[in-house]
Amino acid sequence: MRAALMYGAGDVRVEDRPDPRIVRPGDAVVRVGAACVCGSDLWPYGSMPATDTGRPMGHEFLGVVEETGADVSGLKPGDLVVAPFTYSDNTCDRCARGLHIACRNGGRYGFDGVDGGQGEAMRVPLADGTLVKLPVAADSALIPSLLALSDVMTTGHHGAVTAGVGRGDTVLVVGDGVVGLCAVIAARRRGAERIVLAGRHASRTTLGRHFGATDVVAERGAEGVARIRELTGGVDKVIEAVGTGRALDLALGAVRDGGTVSRLGVPQYEQGPIGPAVFMRNITLTGGASPARAYIEELLPDVLDGTIAPGRVFDRTYTLDHVPEAYRAMADRRVLKALVCP
Amino acid sequence: MRAALMYGAGDVRVEDRPDPRIVRPGDAVVRVGAACVCGSDLWPYGSMPATDTGRPMGHEFLGVVEETGADVSGLKPGDLVVAPFTYSDNTCDRCARGLHIACRNGGRYGFDGVDGGQGEAMRVPLADGTLVKLPVAADSALIPSLLALSDVMTTGHHGAVTAGVGRGDTVLVVGDGVVGLCAVIAARRRGAERIVLAGRHASRTTLGRHFGATDVVAERGAEGVARIRELTGGVDKVIEAVGTGRALDLALGAVRDGGTVSRLGVPQYEQGPIGPAVFMRNITLTGGASPARAYIEELLPDVLDGTIAPGRVFDRTYTLDHVPEAYRAMADRRVLKALVCP
Repeated sequence: MRAALMYGAGDVRVEDRPDPRIVRPGDAVVRVGAACVCGSDLWPYGSMPATDTGRPMGHEFLGVVEETGADVSGLKPGDLVVAPFTYSDNTCDRCARGLHIACRNGGRYGFDGVDGGQGEAMRVPLADGTLVKLPVAADSALIPSLLALSDVMTTGHHGAVTAGVGRGDTVLVVGDGVVGLCAVIAARRRGAERIVLAGRHASRTTLGRHFGATDVVAERGAEGVARIRELTGGVDKVIEAVGTGRALDLALGAVRDGGTVSRLGVPQYEQGPIGPAVFMRNITLTGGASPARAYIEELLPDVLDGTIAPGRVFDRTYTLDHVPEAYRAMADRRVLKALVCP
Repeated sequence: MRAALMYGAGDVRVEDRPDPRIVRPGDAVVRVGAACVCGSDLWPYGSMPATDTGRPMGHEFLGVVEETGADVSGLKPGDLVVAPFTYSDNTCDRCARGLHIACRNGGRYGFDGVDGGQGEAMRVPLADGTLVKLPVAADSALIPSLLALSDVMTTGHHGAVTAGVGRGDTVLVVGDGVVGLCAVIAARRRGAERIVLAGRHASRTTLGRHFGATDVVAERGAEGVARIRELTGGVDKVIEAVGTGRALDLALGAVRDGGTVSRLGVPQYEQGPIGPAVFMRNITLTGGASPARAYIEELLPDVLDGTIAPGRVFDRTYTLDHVPEAYRAMADRRVLKALVCP
């Protein structure tokens, strides 16, 4: 089969690989119908040391089950399934608490002999715990939005859940990347009354308004804080979908006393400002790596009936052979989110 | 009247002061029946620059209403009342959210022309919003436990509430000071199944066990983390009642992935370790300065019926003239918590 591998920064190649096969009795082999390039794929694309072997890429995909191991009972060949961006058993104590990202038996695609999603087919470990069946045809118009459940939509939802966004809240979403835009969808879905989107890219903030943002603030730093406070008097909840210290400062400056800041962007800092000022203001800092698997069933009906349409974040489709071009386009910010159809 | 004033580090004097009187129509004058020296009074006691005027001290007190301003409708002379450690209107948007510590019209005793609680009498601003009537006689045996509602018990409760402690939880309380001990009471009261108390003072941890701690860990640092993990496998919730970076490290090391750390100790650091490791583990950091007023009504019945007895933290009683000695004894750690009976 053909699959995308990264050999170092800026060096993605599509090559022939052995066809995946069942290795353990809990495995399934899935023929990939659609996959993505993720914002987080751009980190190694920017910095990975050169290697001779290459790393299989991609952790967001959906497809059709081709074969199942002896222990797989919930899936059969022909099922259309979506995968969360890590695999997990869905039964350990952490999964039972909805913390599938930290599953005691789980892992990441592209590591430990597991393929990546940017390829023609995949061996998926712990298939019963990982894959979620989709009640649509493989050519459904809903495919992009269903694929978004593998990561970006469930991640935006994680921000809204951990921030405790509820009916009537005023919410700030920091960042107009794909996760920020999905956080707007999630905040709206949970009943937020006012959603301020902090971002500077007109095409993205326009989509954010379509998703439910009521205000857009392009200013940064103290100017951004002042503008958001002028608009809202201080927001109840913040979903911080960037990860820089500057984004956190904006969040802490804009949130009201007693409010909550949920982080979805992996921090690019080791130490942060959690001293007496934040303490006296009773600000809660929450969020973290999304346990995507925990949320797929909850969000699925809303995608199926069109209540939410996160698939609108995909603005360009590539065939597998053009994946290297998709990386370049996303790294250059010419494309927001690339859909890959093998 | 006589009252305690601090003139600088180590310099507390009991002096004659003008009798308090109604200044604003929302004021009440309260004859102090019992007051405390707080752990936080020891901060200026250790570091306050010398001054000629002196600062009235004390923010924990209960007593009998002597006089009320024209706008006070909920209190009358003769009422026995307890005061939370800051005054607040109980009506502004922040109070309405239970964030009385940040009341838009509130303030601190001992500042802005308001007396401190370590004296014979007090003018209490915003009396209707601040003071809570106590349905007992002024000489009730419950007075120490009722007085604890002014700060330490409500603060411990704030930790348990913000940490989300619930039935069956495994909770770590860091610190065997008075607030830590009250946090043990609060965690037990909310149904925690296992409560590990991290502390090194045998007399305090013994009281902690009486309050409901199931385990005591005296080890610090990595050794402390290892011991707590050995005992519990990682705790669900932490109430951090110290405020040092070392206490926070213990909390973050001992909490399970997806768990919550609530801070009650004012941070003695400006920056803390909230980088990728904490993010990937989905740890929530919450807590802050306690809105004592928000919790008094909820805890009062449990004090009245003896379900909780936080007054046991008082291990020495002083008359007003001996308040300077009380400061010395607490600073030297000879006394855990001093009760002051004018």
